Amino acid sequence: MKFCAECGGPIVREIPANDTRLRFVCSVCRTIHYENPRVVAGCVPEWQGKILLCRRAIEPRLGRWTFPAGFMEMGETTVEAAVRETLEEANARVGEPELYTVMSLPHMDQVHMMYRAPLLDLDFSPGSESTEVELFDPDSVPWQELAFPTIHHTLAFYVEDLALGKFRVRTGDVIRDAAGFRFRIGKQYK
Amino acid sequence: MKFCAECGGPIVREIPANDTRLRFVCSVCRTIHYENPRVVAGCVPEWQGKILLCRRAIEPRLGRWTFPAGFMEMGETTVEAAVRETLEEANARVGEPELYTVMSLPHMDQVHMMYRAPLLDLDFSPGSESTEVELFDPDSVPWQELAFPTIHHTLAFYVEDLALGKFRVRTGDVIRDAAGFRFRIGKQYK
Repeated sequence: MKFCAECGGPIVREIPANDTRLRFVCSVCRTIHYENPRVVAGCVPEWQGKILLCRRAIEPRLGRWTFPAGFMEMGETTVEAAVRETLEEANARVGEPELYTVMSLPHMDQVHMMYRAPLLDLDFSPGSESTEVELFDPDSVPWQELAFPTIHHTLAFYVEDLALGKFRVRTGDVIRDAAGFRFRIGKQYK
Repeated sequence: MKFCAECGGPIVREIPANDTRLRFVCSVCRTIHYENPRVVAGCVPEWQGKILLCRRAIEPRLGRWTFPAGFMEMGETTVEAAVRETLEEANARVGEPELYTVMSLPHMDQVHMMYRAPLLDLDFSPGSESTEVELFDPDSVPWQELAFPTIHHTLAFYVEDLALGKFRVRTGDVIRDAAGFRFRIGKQYK
């Protein structure tokens, strides 16, 4: 950030009064420009024991499989964002989503919130960001070809909860440190 | 948003190629400046059947009661944000937080994620944003003096789950429409 979005003045980095962090502050009009993590909302669409996955038509991870997910927009609820992504990426309609996984990715300044939702019919097809959309048996998820870590962790929890016969909200964080990437599981209800 | 943060050029509102929404776009360098909802993380600190509340020293809702909560910062997990807010607002240390409520406020472009966490000791005191910090019996929550709707809904769920003898993740959205404000409960695991 180099220029003030309000007045066009030069931005400096400083700790405002009553704050403890360096912020982007306009040297002319003194507006403080905060930055905050973004929310990604996604949905695992379910149909008679199978789940719907999309093959990505775009970078990053072009050609890899994912369930529908993307950045939450202004004016939306997280549920609305998950439903919209499902419509955009798979031309698929789902019933009321139920929260399933919540994961932070602090190295990317993101929070991922993934839902489960019943597919309403079999009228689905690739949206502009997908080349294929297909129902998978949970036993035949293409684990080696999944697009992102939180897609992997959500589906791994899914298979585990399916075996247990009981779904519940699962939490964890994707952490990048000196040793590389790892998944830190969160405290969660039994 | 009037000026480009990258080059200082004038901002226009337009729908970029491969997009469906009006965005803030720089008319000079063509940078697209996305806006996204923000995450508020909070924590209900628990001590032997009581919960810790803070009386707000600042606007909005100066003088009202809340549990520690605030905007998630860059580089944090939601859990880290909840723990930090508890330290800042109540000078209190908590053990590992467990996700409790997830609520969207689309009219404010916010997602609130509230945790429960065990208070580690009784060494707490008002932080700079609080005038009082006090342990309350769930039966004596000052319902008429709570600061925000999501504080109210989280504590209402809390009292309900306490009576049921079982806590679980609770979801819902605070919706503002023609009829005013209402709370729309989310689908949730039994």
